Amino acid sequence: MGAGSWGTVFAKLLCDAGGDTTIWGRRAAAVEAVNERHENPDYLPGVALPEALRATTDPAEALAGADFVALAVPAQTLRENLTAWRELLPPDAVLVSLMKGVELGGSRLMSEVIGEVAGAPADRIAVFCGPNLAREIAAGQPGAAVAACTDATVARRLQEATMTPYFRVYTTTDVVGCELGGAVKNVVALCVGMAVGLGFGDSTRALLMTRGLAETARLGAALGADEHTFAGLAGMGDLIATCSSPLSRNRTFGENLGKGMSVDEVIAVTKQTAEGVKSSEAVLELARKHGVEMPIAEAVAAVLYRDMPIMDAAVSLISRSPKPERYGV
Amino acid sequence: MGAGSWGTVFAKLLCDAGGDTTIWGRRAAAVEAVNERHENPDYLPGVALPEALRATTDPAEALAGADFVALAVPAQTLRENLTAWRELLPPDAVLVSLMKGVELGGSRLMSEVIGEVAGAPADRIAVFCGPNLAREIAAGQPGAAVAACTDATVARRLQEATMTPYFRVYTTTDVVGCELGGAVKNVVALCVGMAVGLGFGDSTRALLMTRGLAETARLGAALGADEHTFAGLAGMGDLIATCSSPLSRNRTFGENLGKGMSVDEVIAVTKQTAEGVKSSEAVLELARKHGVEMPIAEAVAAVLYRDMPIMDAAVSLISRSPKPERYGV
Repeated sequence: MGAGSWGTVFAKLLCDAGGDTTIWGRRAAAVEAVNERHENPDYLPGVALPEALRATTDPAEALAGADFVALAVPAQTLRENLTAWRELLPPDAVLVSLMKGVELGGSRLMSEVIGEVAGAPADRIAVFCGPNLAREIAAGQPGAAVAACTDATVARRLQEATMTPYFRVYTTTDVVGCELGGAVKNVVALCVGMAVGLGFGDSTRALLMTRGLAETARLGAALGADEHTFAGLAGMGDLIATCSSPLSRNRTFGENLGKGMSVDEVIAVTKQTAEGVKSSEAVLELARKHGVEMPIAEAVAAVLYRDMPIMDAAVSLISRSPKPERYGV
Repeated sequence: MGAGSWGTVFAKLLCDAGGDTTIWGRRAAAVEAVNERHENPDYLPGVALPEALRATTDPAEALAGADFVALAVPAQTLRENLTAWRELLPPDAVLVSLMKGVELGGSRLMSEVIGEVAGAPADRIAVFCGPNLAREIAAGQPGAAVAACTDATVARRLQEATMTPYFRVYTTTDVVGCELGGAVKNVVALCVGMAVGLGFGDSTRALLMTRGLAETARLGAALGADEHTFAGLAGMGDLIATCSSPLSRNRTFGENLGKGMSVDEVIAVTKQTAEGVKSSEAVLELARKHGVEMPIAEAVAAVLYRDMPIMDAAVSLISRSPKPERYGV
């Protein structure tokens, strides 16, 4: 449900793994392109989609009889979309979140929104995530992801439905950990971008990614996630892919800040707000609610929302009191 | 002990943290340059070293009265060097390993070699490591490391002796985990380099780093390390810094292999063997001894030593049987 770049690539994976797949898209032109020319020219120009992949603008047609319903709409519109589709969902379908983000106003994870709106029990809610840039996986480059569901049998069914000769899928039962990894990485990517903009090199970047993941794991522990998830594909893997790619919107946003632009100037130049800009406050709201220290997210939010000069934020991070490497978990 | 690039930067850290520091170097010209011009032109040209930093070619002078003796010689010559210095070591000095590697022929970690040769108990052996490229830290860019000693009090003393306004140090008691992280990362960097050489992008690289760290953690668990260490600066952090830097010798070596050169051709071009080439067999020897599966290290060794075509190695990795994300720990 959603014909953006990752939604389309996930549909391609299902097809390549042998599944009968229909993609729902809002725009008739995109749907027609998938059906007639086997292409999604807006999001994946030049990528040949499987001939067996069908598309429709009718949610009822897309949802009818589905074993898996993959949700790939923007995080902040999920509630509205899913409310509209609620009556059409097959009663036994597994609802798979492909989304990364935290709902603003209440700080709910995507799996929580799905549970609330669709009234689905935990064993019908799954998350599929990993270090995947849509264009690369669409081109058949080797990739991997984690299929997460509290019910291990369901996770294995999703694994089976998505493994292809170029794509490996692992299973886990830690849904919350996988979602948090995906949500917080964008905030860390903003910080890594700022460091790049300030002229710092690979040591500082690796340091920020590592300590950014450490604070994500602290938040995860407070929310009942399994710490090990953060050392895996949904945590470390996704974080590295996002922070390494010069094409990452979040990293680029931070980089412009690091070069001395104001937040408004960056938004004016890039004509969009990076996901991490929205998530940083939602993540901090969660952290405060659970009494978790997240110095990197705090520094990012202070720069974005409280006019803290970027060098002051850097100094605040480096001059914290001496600590053991693991604390607060 | 050792005036290479990282040995020199560590001496600078001790000095910047307020310690009275003497560096031992083999070459009189380098020692003179440090003493007279406060520079190490061979390894860190253009970097101004602290005026208080002294250097000597006389190990007895360098070691006399030292609280910390930092060892920064090549991994494969440590045994010989330390044997020569054994009688000169102050009886209470903490011996700090800055080295990354596994001793060939017996697969001993550096801390084990130190214990054997110096006859020092575990609470006098420490490891200092993290995601640090010497040039960047020498330039005062923000960095961080882990001070590891089985005795937490000693780890805290080392932390205190090395924290500066631009460098954060965390403590841990997991010496073995820190050393393994440093040793295996070079093998993973070879594999990441091969992927880059084959034209694969950020998704494949992040996948290899994540699964490379997962197999390092499996080996670590078998050797009694704390798994969490691998999610920290000595594990994930150091791995990212090494695999991200286009200047990394290991990554470059792999990249040339990925582009189609033979091992001999790469050695001829680069005029040196990357550390990971030596470590891969030593690491696998350890893994086999402990019955641990390390598919990435196996693939690297098969390409290096058993003429496996690089694409066959890639296929062998991607087509393994479906698994949970965490297994074997």
